[in-house]
Amino acid sequence: MQQTSTKQVVRWNLSETTQIEDELVIEEPLEIRVGQQSLIVVMRTPGHDFELAAGFLFTENLIQSEDDIEIIAYCEDDNTESDTDNLYTGRSSFQNILNVHLKDKLVLEEAGWQRNFHANASCGLCGKMTIDSVKHQVDPLELGGRLNHNVLYQLNNQLRAAQTVFDKTGGLHAAGLFNEMGEPLIIREDIGRHNAVDKVIGQALLSDMIPLDNHILMVSGRASFEIVQKALFARIPIVVAVSAASTLAVDLAEEGNITLIGFMRDKRMAVYCHPKRIHNE
Amino acid sequence: MQQTSTKQVVRWNLSETTQIEDELVIEEPLEIRVGQQSLIVVMRTPGHDFELAAGFLFTENLIQSEDDIEIIAYCEDDNTESDTDNLYTGRSSFQNILNVHLKDKLVLEEAGWQRNFHANASCGLCGKMTIDSVKHQVDPLELGGRLNHNVLYQLNNQLRAAQTVFDKTGGLHAAGLFNEMGEPLIIREDIGRHNAVDKVIGQALLSDMIPLDNHILMVSGRASFEIVQKALFARIPIVVAVSAASTLAVDLAEEGNITLIGFMRDKRMAVYCHPKRIHNE
Repeated sequence: MQQTSTKQVVRWNLSETTQIEDELVIEEPLEIRVGQQSLIVVMRTPGHDFELAAGFLFTENLIQSEDDIEIIAYCEDDNTESDTDNLYTGRSSFQNILNVHLKDKLVLEEAGWQRNFHANASCGLCGKMTIDSVKHQVDPLELGGRLNHNVLYQLNNQLRAAQTVFDKTGGLHAAGLFNEMGEPLIIREDIGRHNAVDKVIGQALLSDMIPLDNHILMVSGRASFEIVQKALFARIPIVVAVSAASTLAVDLAEEGNITLIGFMRDKRMAVYCHPKRIHNE
Repeated sequence: MQQTSTKQVVRWNLSETTQIEDELVIEEPLEIRVGQQSLIVVMRTPGHDFELAAGFLFTENLIQSEDDIEIIAYCEDDNTESDTDNLYTGRSSFQNILNVHLKDKLVLEEAGWQRNFHANASCGLCGKMTIDSVKHQVDPLELGGRLNHNVLYQLNNQLRAAQTVFDKTGGLHAAGLFNEMGEPLIIREDIGRHNAVDKVIGQALLSDMIPLDNHILMVSGRASFEIVQKALFARIPIVVAVSAASTLAVDLAEEGNITLIGFMRDKRMAVYCHPKRIHNE
């Protein structure tokens, strides 16, 4: 699927201007529906949309396994006016709406889907409601195997090498799933860092690879709370970020027994918690 | 307000390890309530929360001016259990919940608040619903004054110089509002790029500075659709990003008559649309 589009831009260098053709990363809304109910609209780069939806549902605790999904399909209602077709891609807006049909009927409100919109939370439960709304209860991971630090040092180059769209546009985040030898298994790019992670985990879910006990997740930017939470759902014991981690990301990684690593550059890194999984022997 | 927190981390350099004290950027959930109704939970860096809420409400088209706001206050219900206090900041979770009281009662559903959660959208309106849910109707801007390119070239250093938390943690986005001479007026840092922009626009709203006809907005990362939309609401004619712009960002900037600039580095930049506002005379 097309992920970039060319555009005439004016390139300034000091006071000189030139017209050049530039590659832009495509950003489009994707509406994910469960049954007939609209779940969320995410701004994403088209491509691997089914995996994005599967990963999103899984890491938001709305499904527990691939078996919960009956079918994922683009909306095919052709009564929609065609004037909403996308200028850049020429694709119909139908391809920006996904229907996910689950085996068991899921009523979103009953499933606790209230992260961005929960009405009338009783004020006596303020803090609790807020924390609950972002944090799911997930069991901490087992220690499992240990890795040599050199396995981790290779990841950066591998993620970077696979970032084909980034090279063209400079405008994309990437997430990669690696095995314990540091070999890349699934790498996805997206304008949203969370989407890239959802696409990776969604692909793993649809390929029946979860739990990912012996795997490493690497992200191109920072490690936020939500990235660590997604890793925890997929049971990934090691999370590596190119940039910094936030307090809440470290907090959750400590609690979930995830080894969280930041500032992975060349042969250097900062291990925020659970360093026991890394050795230099 | 405290925006960073120290933490012991293990710094690896080749196969050497050292324990160091690192500064982490604080990430915490903020629940914004309108009346007694929960509007959204955003993951943000504490500080300038009132501005964040005001900017969010304004750029989501839920309020039209500062006059619509009666009062913004942290939740003060002291029946909440104290075990949800934050480990890093020692702050009570009350400071993670904001109540916004508006002069006119606003019923969120009636105000079209359905971006992330709209139920039972009729399928015959698929594409329309999706596009509508992310895109508000805003009038395009006037051309207004023109700027010398050297005004734009100074912005980068000024934004960077003001990023005090970024310097300590490497983990923050920044947004800055500049006047037509390139002088910084409001600069905010946050773990979320959208939040940084909302804090800037919220501060401008609360200071009665909107419309920002003769101003420039600069963001530290990429220019996405939502950044341009926020600028359009605040009537900012020039938007500058350190990194790339997406297709949909350029699309909206073209439509809204916003001059959109990316890859602002040293004395170089890429002008995606409406270059007429920049001259080299």
